Parts: sequence; C-alpha cells; structure tokens
Amino acid sequence: MSAGWLAIAGLGPGDEALVTCEVTAALAQATDVIGYIPYVARVAAREGLTLHPTDNRVELDRAAHALELAAQGSRVVVVSSGDPGVFAMASAVFEAVEAGPAPWRDLDIRVLPGITAMLAASARAGAPLGHDFCAINLSDNLKPWALIEKRLRLAAEADFAMAFYNPRSKARPEGFARVLDVLREACGEDRPILFARAVTTPEEALTITTLGKATSEMADMRTMVIVGSSQTRIIDRVGPPILYTPRSA
Amino acid sequence: MSAGWLAIAGLGPGDEALVTCEVTAALAQATDVIGYIPYVARVAAREGLTLHPTDNRVELDRAAHALELAAQGSRVVVVSSGDPGVFAMASAVFEAVEAGPAPWRDLDIRVLPGITAMLAASARAGAPLGHDFCAINLSDNLKPWALIEKRLRLAAEADFAMAFYNPRSKARPEGFARVLDVLREACGEDRPILFARAVTTPEEALTITTLGKATSEMADMRTMVIVGSSQTRIIDRVGPPILYTPRSA
Repeated sequence: MSAGWLAIAGLGPGDEALVTCEVTAALAQATDVIGYIPYVARVAAREGLTLHPTDNRVELDRAAHALELAAQGSRVVVVSSGDPGVFAMASAVFEAVEAGPAPWRDLDIRVLPGITAMLAASARAGAPLGHDFCAINLSDNLKPWALIEKRLRLAAEADFAMAFYNPRSKARPEGFARVLDVLREACGEDRPILFARAVTTPEEALTITTLGKATSEMADMRTMVIVGSSQTRIIDRVGPPILYTPRSA
Repeated sequence: MSAGWLAIAGLGPGDEALVTCEVTAALAQATDVIGYIPYVARVAAREGLTLHPTDNRVELDRAAHALELAAQGSRVVVVSSGDPGVFAMASAVFEAVEAGPAPWRDLDIRVLPGITAMLAASARAGAPLGHDFCAINLSDNLKPWALIEKRLRLAAEADFAMAFYNPRSKARPEGFARVLDVLREACGEDRPILFARAVTTPEEALTITTLGKATSEMADMRTMVIVGSSQTRIIDRVGPPILYTPRSA
C-alpha cells in the first residue's frame, strides 16, 4: 500500500495570521499542492514540493488529479480559500471519489477547516451572523435561478440573517440585481446589508447600508454580502458602525 | 485617552492546532482574559496576565466586565470556543455596548474569528455543508419554541442542509426529541444525520445515521448535529463513511 494522503485545506480569507497551524503543518509535509492559481500562489515554493496551479472552473479535473497523485503515494494538499467545506473544493473531491475508481474510496483523505469568508466578514463588521442564519451560493452555474429565488424567499420568511457567496460575476451581472429585488420585497427597504470586499487583505473595503440603498454594483466576485435578520442592529460610533444580531433574534 | 482594547477571540473547537496565529498573538499581548471556565482554562497562565473564569449563562455580566476593563486601559481578550460570532460572545458584547455608557461605543473592539463547531464537524465527516445550508441554535433560553419549529420547517422546505448548535441540555431534554419529530415529518426517515461529539478533542465521536434511526439520546451539549439536504450523500468505504453534499445541491 502507498503511504500517500490527500488533505483538502482552507487558507482562510487572505491574511496569513488566519491560517491554522494544522494547515501550515500539512503544507510543510506535502509533496504536491494543487488549486486555483491565486490560492497556490499563497504557498511558498521549496525543494521537494511541486506546485500545480490550475484555472478556475476545473474543480473536478483538479480533484481527480489530486486523487491520482495520492493513490500513487504522494502527499497532496488541495488548497481552497476560506474553508474547503463551504462552497469550495471538499465537495468536488468527494464527487470525484464517488465517481472514480473503487480504491480512491479508501485513500487517507482529510478536510482541514479554515476561516470561511462569511465569518471573516462578520467579524470585521461586528456580529451580523450572531444568531440563526443561512449561507447561500448565488452562482447559478450549478443550480437553476428558480431554486435560488425560492431559498431567498423562504430564508426571509424564516427571518434568518443571510450570507451570500459569489454574488456577482461578469458572466451574469443581472443576477445579483434580481436578488436585491427579491430581498427588498421580502425584507423591506430598511433591512441592513453589508458588502465586505477582500476581507483581511490590503484591498479590504466594508460598506454597511440598507437594502433600499443597495445596488448590484456594490458587489463583485471578491465581495461577501450579508443581509441581517429583522432583529439585526447598527451601532453608530466615531469609527465605522457596528453591525450585529442579538442572541435572542 | 486609554490605550485599552477588547478582542473577542475564537479558540476553535478544541485542538490547539486549530487556533489562528491572530488569536495567539492577541492572547500574548493581553493583560486580562475573560470567559466561561473551560475556555479560560485553555489559556496558559503567565506573569502580567489575569485570568477571569466565569460561570455559564452570565454572558452580559461578563461582557460588561470586559468593557469596563478595556475602558480603564486594559488589554482584554474575551475567549469563546469556536467562532465568537456564531452563537457565542460577540453578540453579547455588542448588546452590552449598545446598552452601556456612551464611551464604550468608541473603544477599540475587534472580533477575531475561529473555526466554528459546525465547520470542524463537517470537515471530520466529509463536506455535509458543501452547498447551501443554515445554522440554528436549538436552545430555547432566548427564543420561543414556536420560532424554532417555524425555522426548521422553512429550512426543510428550502432544502438547506442544517447545522444545529446546543441540541440538548439537562434543563430541556424533551426539546431535541421534538426537533427530530419535526425533521422526520419534513425531510423523511431516510435523510442522513450526523452527530459529532467533542470534535477534535480526545473524546471525539462521530455517528452518521438517518433521521429514522436517530434518537435524542445521541446528542448532548457537546454534540454538533448536522442534517443533510435532499441531495446529501454517504460514501461507504473501509473506514468511517464520508458524508457530503454535492456542489449543485
């Protein structure tokens, strides 16, 4: 039997101080690091380590490549930003495991959690996800718009705070405008909304406003969007305001 | 003006390798660490550091104490397990800020994210939260049972995977049995459910079963419960099975 293994590791939102020691240790032991170009670029080159940067939207090919290398005895880390289990590479790897050759099932595969974007964004703004909430991927690459809209309306009815990943892309700029329309109708114009761009990086920019004043141009693919529940509050102060949801919401 | 500050820091689920460097650095600079007894016990004593362990269910008193110390110039870390922004101390601190004296609003307050229990549990089991999901605190200390049940039914209708914090306590052992009844009715007997106890600690125990076979005794206050969406899958293998939700769910 090979001594290969596969770790699917979360690099967090960007700041190296938010990478866990567990992930740092796995990277130190790896022979191969695989992932989307900007994430692999965060791993320092060293002797004995092969970096495999790949383009976006090739998740299943990337997963299969990682599993092949591990099956051959390599120590492989697949890197994601944030947490690999939240709209990231872990599900893609397990899809490849299920569809792939039987021996892949018995490989040593571990998921190493990281700080996911919604929790980094929430921390920077205060605690908007401090009570019951949901996380929705707004990309309609892999699911129909009707399902996204259904989830938005039910989440509003449940009075969840809502965290939105992948709000807006060049390929479908109109989708997020429709999301904002649905939310305004379901939650009202006064509901607080946070746009948190490139959180914990030098380009970080936070905007707290209301659904009535929000426009789709406020988000791009590096932006995490969080909409409060009916109980979410804004504390005004000398510095940036604090956005938080009470524990009883 | 005082140079005091307040950091609300997440210690992660238990394993020290899951604490971020940002949190470690804040603890190294602190003059005071405040929190629930078992969390403060995770911080090493040293000269110049005062530890303030407090009992559970005194969150607002603890928050006010931390704010008072910071206002007096202390460097204070309030410690939570997991992530402070998810059913933890961050919201309690901001509630105290809003209700407290005006100068508290302008204190240097930062939230330092951590690995929250649902993402640690998800990582250990595979990737059950790999697509749209919600997080619900099942404690009815701070909200009525009717709201919990409403959210369960709407979350099932939205076909979210669901992560449940605080499923069961000695004070209300019957509540979680009712949750399971509602979920069986809304999601069917065959829906996968994960019980993840004391994840990343020496007492870790994972059970993957179905709603039909789940009983309320499978959870205690150290257990994270995750219920899959209709698309969540189980991969059988030689070792423990893998539970994951595909990216298109």
